[in-house]
Amino acid sequence: MAATAPATPAQSAGAVPALPQQQADHVGILAAEVYFPNTMVRHEELEKHDGVPSGKYTVGLGQQGLAFCGDREDAVSMALTACKRLLEKHGISPMEVGRLEVGTESSVDSSKSIKTYLMMMFEEAGNTDIEGVDCVQACYGGTAAVLNAANWVESRSWDGRYAVVVMSDISLYPAGPARPTSGAGAVALLIGPDAPLALERGLSATHMSHAYDFYKPSGLYPAVDGPLSVYCYLNTMDLLLARYAAKFEKRMGRAFCLESDADHALFHAPYNKLVQKAFARLLYHDMCKHGEVPEALAKWSLRDGSHPRPPMAMPADLEKALVAHAFATYDRKVRPSTCVARQCGNMYTASIWSGIQQLIETTGASLEGRRVLMYSYGSGISASMFSLVGRRPEAPRFALARLQAMSDLAMRLARRVPKSPEDFEQAVQLAEQRYCAGNYKPELPAIEELEPGTFYLAEVDARYRRIYARKPAAQ
Amino acid sequence: MAATAPATPAQSAGAVPALPQQQADHVGILAAEVYFPNTMVRHEELEKHDGVPSGKYTVGLGQQGLAFCGDREDAVSMALTACKRLLEKHGISPMEVGRLEVGTESSVDSSKSIKTYLMMMFEEAGNTDIEGVDCVQACYGGTAAVLNAANWVESRSWDGRYAVVVMSDISLYPAGPARPTSGAGAVALLIGPDAPLALERGLSATHMSHAYDFYKPSGLYPAVDGPLSVYCYLNTMDLLLARYAAKFEKRMGRAFCLESDADHALFHAPYNKLVQKAFARLLYHDMCKHGEVPEALAKWSLRDGSHPRPPMAMPADLEKALVAHAFATYDRKVRPSTCVARQCGNMYTASIWSGIQQLIETTGASLEGRRVLMYSYGSGISASMFSLVGRRPEAPRFALARLQAMSDLAMRLARRVPKSPEDFEQAVQLAEQRYCAGNYKPELPAIEELEPGTFYLAEVDARYRRIYARKPAAQ
Repeated sequence: MAATAPATPAQSAGAVPALPQQQADHVGILAAEVYFPNTMVRHEELEKHDGVPSGKYTVGLGQQGLAFCGDREDAVSMALTACKRLLEKHGISPMEVGRLEVGTESSVDSSKSIKTYLMMMFEEAGNTDIEGVDCVQACYGGTAAVLNAANWVESRSWDGRYAVVVMSDISLYPAGPARPTSGAGAVALLIGPDAPLALERGLSATHMSHAYDFYKPSGLYPAVDGPLSVYCYLNTMDLLLARYAAKFEKRMGRAFCLESDADHALFHAPYNKLVQKAFARLLYHDMCKHGEVPEALAKWSLRDGSHPRPPMAMPADLEKALVAHAFATYDRKVRPSTCVARQCGNMYTASIWSGIQQLIETTGASLEGRRVLMYSYGSGISASMFSLVGRRPEAPRFALARLQAMSDLAMRLARRVPKSPEDFEQAVQLAEQRYCAGNYKPELPAIEELEPGTFYLAEVDARYRRIYARKPAAQ
Repeated sequence: MAATAPATPAQSAGAVPALPQQQADHVGILAAEVYFPNTMVRHEELEKHDGVPSGKYTVGLGQQGLAFCGDREDAVSMALTACKRLLEKHGISPMEVGRLEVGTESSVDSSKSIKTYLMMMFEEAGNTDIEGVDCVQACYGGTAAVLNAANWVESRSWDGRYAVVVMSDISLYPAGPARPTSGAGAVALLIGPDAPLALERGLSATHMSHAYDFYKPSGLYPAVDGPLSVYCYLNTMDLLLARYAAKFEKRMGRAFCLESDADHALFHAPYNKLVQKAFARLLYHDMCKHGEVPEALAKWSLRDGSHPRPPMAMPADLEKALVAHAFATYDRKVRPSTCVARQCGNMYTASIWSGIQQLIETTGASLEGRRVLMYSYGSGISASMFSLVGRRPEAPRFALARLQAMSDLAMRLARRVPKSPEDFEQAVQLAEQRYCAGNYKPELPAIEELEPGTFYLAEVDARYRRIYARKPAAQ
């Protein structure tokens, strides 16, 4: 063969036919599935156990309960469960998926992605031709994955198949004031064109910078600067509101007004009280911009064109008054998507996206023609503000009314049986022992306590290989 | 304001104007910059020091030297250096960048991305509106990031700005047979339309599955199953060649032939000997498919339509004969892109992409009209086979001849001053001590030994915050 090789290179790529130019429309969320561990503890119980004043966690943090994993579940098993639920429930064959990626900050390996574990369920169906890997950047990784998936569908790489994005995380804090903000859960999203919740392309605003508000440099527990975290979350939201509003105004020819232009707002939720404050702050921006200030806030002299006080210089009583004033609007625009986060705790990457299935469950076809404003935040810092628009897709399979009818979130939240604070502490001790460990069989919870169809960690062998199994689905 | 709120939701999203439909063309690599630490050790010296037969590393692995970091550099500092070099050398303002993402498996934090550290140089220029996060999936993360960036440029998210992709990794193995395959380095790529090395859209083939060939579950060092790794690398390449060839045939109307259809081939390079074997194996597939078998290989009865022996069933003497036979073609198509990997060791995500700058440096404008076949592999498993096409861009700034003239890779490789094997061992011991540590000042190498313009780790404080500094660039 060497004898037949050309003396000069082949100029091999001279005449490559162009690809068709058609670009997909209305790309966004076709369906969403949330998974949370069955094991949970109520914040009411935690308050008693921790000897803190009643209301400190339930009112002060705005939380009702937190989900925890024991050592039987991890970010991989939760991702497997959420992904399988999405495919099975919506009748998606693994062959129909051309992109799969994961947002996480709870990976069990520094090299091997959670995505490769999810490939097990696609491989057994004969499909390994699936792009995408793990996206890692604190709580923002899932949003990065969603934007990547949407870009793929609109790019020349797209081959007509669906994208699946899975977010899966465990948040766990050392004993102390942050521990009640622990949580766990996973979300799987089906992404494609003709979506009932389409991304508003061209309105997405992003802010990224370097900060040490929350990071995880040294083991199981994160390093957290609480006040800096809150400041970064709110300050970044201010920046993004300005960027989003500028894009909105340029495209729509009028100023953005939260009250009239966003029917729903979803927030990354470290704990619900911060979501309440964030939403009130968005309304505060509206007031300073549009000048419609209610009587109750008259003493702060907000007027048309006044500058919102930056988060650092916000008087506590003004913030409190704003939250109180915003309550009715919050009730309408935000509350319908906050149950999972309030009852399961911080799910990191899955946090904001857990609100989507819940919004579909509570609101259904009424979302058609409505705008959902999203504020996704990841410490470190990375954040985006963007919007989804509800619409009636051509494919009835993904109609909002149908998705609503199929959703079982409230039912699944309600049927969990709470564990005691002592059980939670035992699970945390186990997590400490198991961190980066090999050669063990998981102990908690008992397999009987898992929901049917749940994936779980069956064993970690002496070579640190993790073997997963699935509890049979209900008949 | 509550009084003026509408009783029913706003149906806010009724009339959103459509975005323009124009899609970018010839998206690909506009420029590439490689960075490797100045501190390196020669494999010849390592052979003597380790008391192994002469040639074991140099011929057996095909390696010449390995770069190592000490504790003064890490994956973040190398990413900073590579990114800064790319921007400065090609006169790209940080304001011109709209997407920045990182491929890595050597992150210093489980939550905060390397991308957020890179934001420092964009923030100081006033640009924080930059999408993209870290892509994590073994050595494939960089390729995933490149594909994401290309999709972004072709999507409706694109705003006309450049994308930058940075790959940065340290490979380090415990004392024993794998240690000589250690290495370190980073690559920064500028991605956009009208590229001198454009991705051939529609020809990319991907394979992902679950395997434990190489992973990193328990600390500094990976867990490696050597024979399984080699098998997975070669077996995945077989699968991808078939997929790539099928797409090629469908689009081009003729069978793919490595000899005539690929002028260059780049491979992920754990060590050079595997690259030699992999390329010989691709030629072997050509033979079995096209039947042009040279005399020297006659005894193995390869004929038109015969099936290549799978990697597991490959006789050692046939593999050796294939490598020998392929030598002349390897010399022409592969060698011109392998110097960095052979002299710096495994750079994980940066490995295959380090070949791009080198190919530009050795080949320049002769790449126009030529096809470069790429085989990117990450353990776990994820891999893609795809191709780039050399072309003359409309913007002379990124013409291949100009990129070639500006490249200084061979010069920088040559002016490194080798360290002793003892120095390397001392650096490894330091890496063991520093793993997940806080509260220290880096010791090695001395700042004087860094190249001008290199970023380095100045301090890790008691709260694990990493402070980076930059050695002044040469005047």
